[in-house]
Amino acid sequence: MARPRSGIDAEVFAATLKTVHELGYARATVDRIAAEAGIAKTTIYRRWPSKGALLTAALVDAFGPAPLTGASRTEILATAIRWIAAKIGEPGIGAAFAGVFTDAVNDPELRVILSAQLQDPYRIAVEKALGLPEREVLFIIDVVVGTLLHRMGMTGEPMADDDVEALITLVTK
Amino acid sequence: MARPRSGIDAEVFAATLKTVHELGYARATVDRIAAEAGIAKTTIYRRWPSKGALLTAALVDAFGPAPLTGASRTEILATAIRWIAAKIGEPGIGAAFAGVFTDAVNDPELRVILSAQLQDPYRIAVEKALGLPEREVLFIIDVVVGTLLHRMGMTGEPMADDDVEALITLVTK
Repeated sequence: MARPRSGIDAEVFAATLKTVHELGYARATVDRIAAEAGIAKTTIYRRWPSKGALLTAALVDAFGPAPLTGASRTEILATAIRWIAAKIGEPGIGAAFAGVFTDAVNDPELRVILSAQLQDPYRIAVEKALGLPEREVLFIIDVVVGTLLHRMGMTGEPMADDDVEALITLVTK
Repeated sequence: MARPRSGIDAEVFAATLKTVHELGYARATVDRIAAEAGIAKTTIYRRWPSKGALLTAALVDAFGPAPLTGASRTEILATAIRWIAAKIGEPGIGAAFAGVFTDAVNDPELRVILSAQLQDPYRIAVEKALGLPEREVLFIIDVVVGTLLHRMGMTGEPMADDDVEALITLVTK
């Protein structure tokens, strides 16, 4: 999983999400993110090979561990879905998340980074917590994250609580 | 809905999807699309105010009318979901679709264009075909399109048929 975060990492991640929040994913170049963080662009590229890799690292850092507790599969899933819905609503996160997936469609290297650093740790934790096979968990992740990001793109707002509850009902019924 | 398509529109739309397919959404600039179509960039901007508006028009043209036929709500939805899953798998479509939603997160004008030109015609047709209220249909669109695009971003491939069938079961059960 993610290496321990240094002080510089924390500043770069904050600058990354602030820039994406203010300018959108497309205009949040590594140049602008470096300027916002007050460091050289080469310092960023020394740590992360591409904009997609930097954005993925900022998302991993922003999300932190998923809460996967509850007395039943339904409770565990409900807690996790409410958590990711709230995270996607935080400034810059929805746009950064949607942006890396978009770039990944045509970028095999970024897909490897996204899978290994962002999706796999959560997927494996969810498999263990729910006792479900990989394929089913990948499907649940597609449904939950895809739905939340599509709503964010269409409305510019995170999904409202009652629709998040409808999403929980959908994937747990 | 979309105005009748001219010969130039058809060439620009084909050049748009080809460029997105080859370069990805981010690098498919209006400059490159104009070069691919062999026309001046100003000709594109005279018809579409922004890259997002051009991409939306290309998607509307590529999708065409949704098949909304069947003897029951389940059959109608199943037909429509298989149709959109196949469309998202066509070259350039998945990346273009994911890209406009990403840009829309931070672009209120693009959200208006996306809603009015792409989502509303399908939403209204689905409401009529299924006899469901707007809010439920918007939720179904988020789930179906979001899931398909997330899978495309994570794997670089359209969703496999058996997972599309699982998605149909999910939204119709």
